[in-house]
Formats: sequence, structure tokens, C-alpha cells
Amino acid sequence: MSRFTQRLEQASTVTKSLVCVGLDPDPARMPVDSVYEFNQAIVDATAGIVCAYKPNLAFYEALGLPGLEDLHKTIAHIRDSTPGAIIIGDAKRGDIGPSAQAYAKALFQVWGFDAVTINAWGGEDTVTPFLEDETKGVFVWCRGSNPGSADFQDVRITTDDGPMALYRNMALACQQWDTKGNLGLVVGATVPEQLKEIRAVCPNMPFLIPGVGAQGGDLEAAVRLGSDSRGRAALINSSRGIIYASSGRDFAQAAAREAEKLRTSINQVLEADGKVWPSN
Amino acid sequence: MSRFTQRLEQASTVTKSLVCVGLDPDPARMPVDSVYEFNQAIVDATAGIVCAYKPNLAFYEALGLPGLEDLHKTIAHIRDSTPGAIIIGDAKRGDIGPSAQAYAKALFQVWGFDAVTINAWGGEDTVTPFLEDETKGVFVWCRGSNPGSADFQDVRITTDDGPMALYRNMALACQQWDTKGNLGLVVGATVPEQLKEIRAVCPNMPFLIPGVGAQGGDLEAAVRLGSDSRGRAALINSSRGIIYASSGRDFAQAAAREAEKLRTSINQVLEADGKVWPSN
Repeated sequence: MSRFTQRLEQASTVTKSLVCVGLDPDPARMPVDSVYEFNQAIVDATAGIVCAYKPNLAFYEALGLPGLEDLHKTIAHIRDSTPGAIIIGDAKRGDIGPSAQAYAKALFQVWGFDAVTINAWGGEDTVTPFLEDETKGVFVWCRGSNPGSADFQDVRITTDDGPMALYRNMALACQQWDTKGNLGLVVGATVPEQLKEIRAVCPNMPFLIPGVGAQGGDLEAAVRLGSDSRGRAALINSSRGIIYASSGRDFAQAAAREAEKLRTSINQVLEADGKVWPSN
Repeated sequence: MSRFTQRLEQASTVTKSLVCVGLDPDPARMPVDSVYEFNQAIVDATAGIVCAYKPNLAFYEALGLPGLEDLHKTIAHIRDSTPGAIIIGDAKRGDIGPSAQAYAKALFQVWGFDAVTINAWGGEDTVTPFLEDETKGVFVWCRGSNPGSADFQDVRITTDDGPMALYRNMALACQQWDTKGNLGLVVGATVPEQLKEIRAVCPNMPFLIPGVGAQGGDLEAAVRLGSDSRGRAALINSSRGIIYASSGRDFAQAAAREAEKLRTSINQVLEADGKVWPSN
């Protein structure tokens, strides 16, 4: 276990939660003017219920430099108020060696994320620069939750190990590259068959699983097929389903309620399989 | 022809140049303290010699918010001093629908780029949000110039049209998605065979071709195989080979000299094939 996976495990154990909240600000859906104020209220209301927060950089970049300043303050607030929580920069970055190094520096050193999502389309030298620090986690976008992810990720290829889908080939490559134990995979909750197959190939890797909530993924399947044999090493993400649960002034309380509901639903699945959290 | 490809063609015709300069700031290699001052000097020295500038966002993000402010000022300076030049945001972004929309807004509306590079690993719904405005260009990262690009882009797949490499399949998909004529492809100069094959599949699309210069791609092959039948619709990019041609105070003059050398070498290949620029 890398230092990163230890931290992730601890964050889950302390909160008895596999829930990750996606912080994807959309000013049109927020009842307050400030993105930072919105995020701060969501974080304060959900602290202790969830183990991770995942700001998606797209939504901050769309707001220009003020949006990035709000992201900076949001990260600082999570760090101060909820020190154990894992902060994942959902960036899906990917570029050739020197550019990948620059992105890794930006995400881990400048922004200070604990983990990031990346895109491995460019192959090994676009991935390895992110893996250098074993205290930091790297989730490779292996099989997405969106319809288009079928276009290239599901193509059948021929390999020395026989025919397989490309996402499986990518999962196998990631296992080879993961010399420090800090590499994980993004696999959508909307594709339980693929989730099951990839978990069989990578029994111990942490999985970041988007697609429950607004995207309609099957939660029970996501928990059962996506977690490891102990019912751990999975982050079940919900973004819009939690942060926009109410468009009124009670948005933070509504978010806490939805996060709590998701934690409970996940833990019911785990408990039904005899996978209980240790008492603190 | 979309408004974007018209603008690109005009930028090349006016400068008699297929050269794109990559603006990838690395403070350790710059003889001045300010990234903006460095870029400004490079732009002023190369204006009229090159048709496009391509800042790679990784290098600005690695410098934090001050780096992004330098990028903002750099874009404004190119716009003011060299109005015809195409400004390409080398961002390699790619994410599911709503996030892709947010990235498109960030790159085209907030940053004001004329074109961007994107990553199509997530399939159709990750690409189409970028294509909405036909005055803006979108270069999909089809076959990279780096060694790792062989890992997934070159895998052999089976399709209804027979077996083919995945990069070819992506090029074919991009042609389907390109309803407005503003989609292009990134194909590396380091892989002339692939460049030739992809150009045959997409005879008219604009290609952004990295990999000459520091990465060692074959310039003559890149020009001959990468341009369209008229010797147009190709951007030959050099970043480090131009902007770090000298580490002294004469860096801007050295950059202009290298850009001029590259323009001349490209035009010699075009002329040898009878593809001359129209007189202005």
C-alpha cells in the first residue's frame, strides 16, 4: 500500500463512507453569488459524512481567473476544516512527457490536490510523471460513465493475451506502470459489466466511480462490483445529485441529507455482504 | 470551408508560412524574469514569419495564477500586435458532456483562443461541445509524436470496414463528427507512415503537426505527407527548437532566425513539388 492508498483508506474508515462529493459549480444553479461561499457551505455540511471532495476543473476554468481563485480558497477550506478528507482534482489531463511533468507540478504542487484524474490516451510517458510522489493518487480514466466512452474504450483488440476490449488492455497497462501503488482507475457506475471485469483484472486498485445520481448508474452494482474484496478501495462519486439537491437557501442541508442517504445506501449494500466498518 | 479554416488559410497565405510557434515557458531556460516579457519578445520577433502561436496550458498552470495572468496578457498581445495570427490553446482537454461544455466555454470564451487541442478518448459527446462555433478550430489528438502514443493509438482493431489501427478509426469518427468543417487532427511528425495514412483518410482537414525540432521528426516527410494536395492545411509546430534557440539576451532574434529557417525549409519542400504561395 502506498502512502496515498493508506490515506484514502483512513479517510473512508474515519467517516465510514465511500462517498465522494463532486464540486462542479454552475452559477445558474446556485442560490448564492459566490462559488467559494457555495462550496464552503457544502463542505461544512457534508464534513464527516463523505471521505473525499472532487472539484472538476472545467467548471472553475469556465469562470476565468476568479473561478480559479474560488477553487484555491475551496481547497484551503477543505484542508483546514476537514483535514482527513481526500481532495481530488478532476482534471483528466494528459500530454507528452515534459507537458505531463508540468501538469503534475500544477496539480500536486501548485493546487495541492491529494489525487488527480488523468487521461492515458498518449500512453506510458504521459502517465508516469504523475506517479512519482507515492503520497499522491492518480486515477486513469479507463472506462467512462458517458455514452461516448463506448466509441473507443470498448473497441475489441487483439493482444498476446488474446482478444479483449481496449479498456481492459488499459487497465492491464496501468497495473504494469503502477510501481508505487498509487495508481487507480476511473470506471463508470453506468457500465456494471465493465466495472466487474476491470475489478477482476485489478483486484486491489482504488477505483473512482462516477455516474450514480444524475447519470442514473446502478448504485448497488457499483458498490458490489466496484469495491475490493473487503468492500473498500472505491470512491462512489455524486456531483449534481448532492450539490444541487435543493435550489433554495437550504442547499447545504439538502446536500448533507443526500450525502447521508448515499452513505447509508452504500453501507447497506456492504453490510448485506458482511463487510462492516471497524468501530473507531 | 468553415470560417475557421478560411482564417487559417489566410493566416498562412499572408505570411507564406505553415510555421506554428509553441509558447511553452520554462523559467529555468529564459534569460528574462517575466514569462509575459519573454513571450512578447518572441511574438514581436516572429510576427510575419509564422501563421500561428500555440501556448501549451500545462506550462502556464505549473506557474500558478501568475502564470495564467501571463498567458492572458500573451494572448492579448498577439491579438493586438499580429491580428491575423491563429492562437491555439494546446490544452488536450476531454471530459463528459457538461464538463466538455465548460472546457469549451473556458477556452473559447474566457481565454479567447481561435483553436484548441482536445482529447477524444471519451468519444463523441466529449468532442461535439467544442465544435459548436464554426469560427473556432478543434484539433483532436489522433496520433501523438511521443513514444507512448504507440501504446493505445496504434492497437489493431476489427471494424465493419476491416481491421485497422485505432488512430485511423478515430480519424474516421472525427470526419463523421465534423459537420461544420472546423475539426482538425494532431498527428506527430515523428511517425510519417501514420501521417501519410491519416492524410489519405482525411484529405482536407487541417493537421497540427508537432515533433519537428527538439523531438527529431523528419521535416520533409511532415510537409509532404502532412499537407493537403495544395500544400496547405498543415501547421508545422516547433516549440523548444525556436523559443530556446539561444539562452542569451538575443533569444528573440535567435527565435526569429530559427522560425525563418523553418519557414524557408518548408517552402523549399512545397516549391519542389510545385506548390507555391500566391503573390500577395
